[in-house]
Amino acid sequence: MTSNRNKAREVAAFFQGVATVDHVPLECPEYRDDDVGAIAREKARFAYEHLKKPLIVDDTGFFIPALGGFPGPYAAYVLGTIGLEGVLRLMEGKEDTRAWFETAIAYADEGGIRIFRGRIEGVIVAPRGSGGFGYDPIVAVDGRTLAEMPLAEKAGISHRGRALAALKEWLAAGGPDSGPHTNC
Amino acid sequence: MTSNRNKAREVAAFFQGVATVDHVPLECPEYRDDDVGAIAREKARFAYEHLKKPLIVDDTGFFIPALGGFPGPYAAYVLGTIGLEGVLRLMEGKEDTRAWFETAIAYADEGGIRIFRGRIEGVIVAPRGSGGFGYDPIVAVDGRTLAEMPLAEKAGISHRGRALAALKEWLAAGGPDSGPHTNC
Repeated sequence: MTSNRNKAREVAAFFQGVATVDHVPLECPEYRDDDVGAIAREKARFAYEHLKKPLIVDDTGFFIPALGGFPGPYAAYVLGTIGLEGVLRLMEGKEDTRAWFETAIAYADEGGIRIFRGRIEGVIVAPRGSGGFGYDPIVAVDGRTLAEMPLAEKAGISHRGRALAALKEWLAAGGPDSGPHTNC
Repeated sequence: MTSNRNKAREVAAFFQGVATVDHVPLECPEYRDDDVGAIAREKARFAYEHLKKPLIVDDTGFFIPALGGFPGPYAAYVLGTIGLEGVLRLMEGKEDTRAWFETAIAYADEGGIRIFRGRIEGVIVAPRGSGGFGYDPIVAVDGRTLAEMPLAEKAGISHRGRALAALKEWLAAGGPDSGPHTNC
């Protein structure tokens, strides 16, 4: 379950041969929390109450320790208001330039909700590269920004890719059949 | 209905002689939206479903046009991460220094939900004053920051004061008895 068709297509491709994934657009309240896992959990609970069939939802945040974790779960809002330029301005003179993306995927079915997380860590740099989207041009991992990496390479190490891989592994190992999974 | 006891006391005092107001703590999801009215409406809907009696909830945002409306409904989160210093840094060199607070109060009962709004506009300045809280030291109205004003004076012109006044006027004029009020 995701409201973004491209993301849905990516997810469906990822699970080819393991599970069938349909895309169901659903108006869902956007919960506020500092933890993407808690947000994904709430969205999954809401969606399962409405759809009553196994589903996944995700939530992603972007965290900069030198800014107290900002923009955190509000990465999209911050990008749309103060933009990369604003974030770079806030980082001027900061010694700790670390930053990471974190995605939480919540899987929900009649047995409960299970959370899978993926994270990618880098450092904030001046914008470079024309690929990717969002914060990609200002986040460098091992010397290259995410906007400088080929899409396939980025997908292999990205926060979302890692969270999806964890979910896929669990599903391939029996997943829901391994018992109830609320609060894990 | 508010989870803040001081605010509840202020509200109860405000309605003395017009209505009796109890404070009911309730765990409520925090909805994300650019509009405080939409957030207050969702919170009121959630709370009414649980409490099934007339209630008010509020939501407040802080909007800076030069920053695309940032921090908007995430004023508390932004204050707790990048702080006043971060906001002032983002404002360096901006010609348009306007900023406003907006509070939306949602009244809910069996007839539906009605929204009351209050707004106070000022300009962003270097911090001054020791009163108030939050963004008050950097928001000047007619030459003084909100942190330089006596509390009673601030309450009289504030966003929350104005929203409460609009609600009080409606209640005094018959309020809910004037008919259904969803979607106003």
